[in-house]
Amino acid sequence: MAPTTTTTTPAPAPAPAPATRTRSVEWKDGGLQLIDQRLLPTKFELIRCETVEQVKQAIHDMAVRGAPAIGAAGAFGIAMAAQAVDISDKTTQDDVLDAVKKAKEIIDSARPTAVNLAWATDKVVQDLIHHASQGLSVKDLPQRALDAAQALAEDDVDINRRLSQFGAEIVKPGANILHHCNTGALATVDIGTAIGVIYECHQQGKNIHVWVDETRPRLQGARLSAWELMREGVPMHLIADNAAGYLMLAGKVDVVLFGADRVAANGDVVNKIGTYKLGVVAKENKIPVYACVPTSTIDLEFKEGLSIPIEERSAEEVTCVRGVRIAPENCPVFNPAFDVTPHQYLTGIITEEGICYPPFTESLAKAKTAAEQRMQAKLQGRP
Amino acid sequence: MAPTTTTTTPAPAPAPAPATRTRSVEWKDGGLQLIDQRLLPTKFELIRCETVEQVKQAIHDMAVRGAPAIGAAGAFGIAMAAQAVDISDKTTQDDVLDAVKKAKEIIDSARPTAVNLAWATDKVVQDLIHHASQGLSVKDLPQRALDAAQALAEDDVDINRRLSQFGAEIVKPGANILHHCNTGALATVDIGTAIGVIYECHQQGKNIHVWVDETRPRLQGARLSAWELMREGVPMHLIADNAAGYLMLAGKVDVVLFGADRVAANGDVVNKIGTYKLGVVAKENKIPVYACVPTSTIDLEFKEGLSIPIEERSAEEVTCVRGVRIAPENCPVFNPAFDVTPHQYLTGIITEEGICYPPFTESLAKAKTAAEQRMQAKLQGRP
Repeated sequence: MAPTTTTTTPAPAPAPAPATRTRSVEWKDGGLQLIDQRLLPTKFELIRCETVEQVKQAIHDMAVRGAPAIGAAGAFGIAMAAQAVDISDKTTQDDVLDAVKKAKEIIDSARPTAVNLAWATDKVVQDLIHHASQGLSVKDLPQRALDAAQALAEDDVDINRRLSQFGAEIVKPGANILHHCNTGALATVDIGTAIGVIYECHQQGKNIHVWVDETRPRLQGARLSAWELMREGVPMHLIADNAAGYLMLAGKVDVVLFGADRVAANGDVVNKIGTYKLGVVAKENKIPVYACVPTSTIDLEFKEGLSIPIEERSAEEVTCVRGVRIAPENCPVFNPAFDVTPHQYLTGIITEEGICYPPFTESLAKAKTAAEQRMQAKLQGRP
Repeated sequence: MAPTTTTTTPAPAPAPAPATRTRSVEWKDGGLQLIDQRLLPTKFELIRCETVEQVKQAIHDMAVRGAPAIGAAGAFGIAMAAQAVDISDKTTQDDVLDAVKKAKEIIDSARPTAVNLAWATDKVVQDLIHHASQGLSVKDLPQRALDAAQALAEDDVDINRRLSQFGAEIVKPGANILHHCNTGALATVDIGTAIGVIYECHQQGKNIHVWVDETRPRLQGARLSAWELMREGVPMHLIADNAAGYLMLAGKVDVVLFGADRVAANGDVVNKIGTYKLGVVAKENKIPVYACVPTSTIDLEFKEGLSIPIEERSAEEVTCVRGVRIAPENCPVFNPAFDVTPHQYLTGIITEEGICYPPFTESLAKAKTAAEQRMQAKLQGRP
């Protein structure tokens, strides 16, 4: 059964205070509530999942997207499976563990190549196995599963909050910020990375303004970032990606912020196609450039970025826009989803452990170590 | 009355030999035939204008676009007015001249800010006034008007052919050419400028391949250049503008070619938004960059490009694609139509008088003088 739609309003919704902002992924009244990102920016709809199958469907159909957001949705799906077990005196620990393991198989199959999804569902399952082995009673296991999923979601929010606060330090009052793709509350559980920095600056009253790259071909900037920033009341203008250079040359960009899909050990950044052009033109105009990433995005196994394989996507993303054809039939297309911005074009890399500066090989390794230590300390502090 | 549609076929039409290519603007069987550019690339339709009103309508509705193409259409419209005069023994020279002056008013009003339109219609009217004053008989005036319009159209084709041949000299066999916007046969009477160079290379068997920038926001690359190049059988791939940097860094671009809307005396180039980014990233990767322009585009009155005012266009060009909304309602937009590429990013400027190299202040002035001398010699050679 498909997830049920609970709320429909014309988009964008009027800007609520940040504390009351609807999260992209949220456990609410015993079920999972998601913002349906397929309909943005023309419609704002919340969908509600109450079964594992509905969670799977929502992930598969991309109602929820963005690696951290998908991971959290999957984790809540596992909790849902535990909660659905009918607990009686005869129920065993294995009954609950079998239910969550089965749920993990179902949910993981929704997007088999999304590493974050299987990682997050595994976290909750392993946590439950661990607590069961420590003798947690059967009747307490469902709540434990929900606590684990909730903790995972809150970790994401916490990382983004820390990252955003570090990032806000390098943004001057009144700055014009250029932003590429979507890195906001929609792509994560809440807040976001580069857009998280923007929110933080806005809340600090820094009087910033954002140039929003529309980000062809998938238009994440026009569809999602513009909607998010309008929802929060952040002053912004949407631009065609082609206009970014004009603005830089005209002295109307003070800093460039974006996220990343992977960061190599030397600081080379793999991010949405178009990022490399921005890096080069910004450097030419002496404009600082920062990638904003959780340390989990830093992949020390890749020494440099140009060795990271780049995904090619379908021609339709370029030849059609929301189903409308803009190029000739059978037109040959080359559609790389990402590009590599070599580290020399970056001023710094903003993480939840602080801002890494060149030489990145040292500063990124330090940030990774700090993050691991902090996570260990946090886990030890938990029941 | 609107122009009549004479031919409809699914686009793109199979590639004809260049000699039989349908021109964007062509006098045929006593009327004006235009390719309806509004319908490309999804439909290829020819429209036929047989009255001055129909010519005005086709220009106004942008069935024909591109400065040289509009100019030629207007010139043929003037000829049409002269041909429509019912010549008898009582008809005077003034009857014919009044008819063409009235037609000029009607046609010029179709796009009042298009300098090229009024310039072209004026050329035909003045030519007719001149010949009337020289005693050309009333019955010969209509043919004279048509000859003047035809000469004007052929001048455009001739300039593009010369420019293309010069340009082909700098393109190496097997080259990957990156092209921005539409500069082809559709924007001119035939051949085109930067795409003219591409056609010439292709016909010379240079085994070239073209990366076609889609050129947001108006998508002239996806809609028109892709269609043109497919029609001619030129090997190409359409790309999102964001992918151009990726290709340059990967060593897959050998030369960058584009047109220009205006060139300043120092070689600064005003062209479609996005050109500046290409220039900067190409230079960073040591890839040669050439603007391809008729000398009429060189404006010696502007010493440098940054002083040239840049037109801002409507938000809808960014927020909607072929009528489909891609951004939130009421989303603020900044939409500059052009940018300035400072001359230091250009390797050369290809004109019908040869290739201009730095220092451009000297080479462009020389090209302008050469073009004027050639035009004078040509006019003296005509009846």
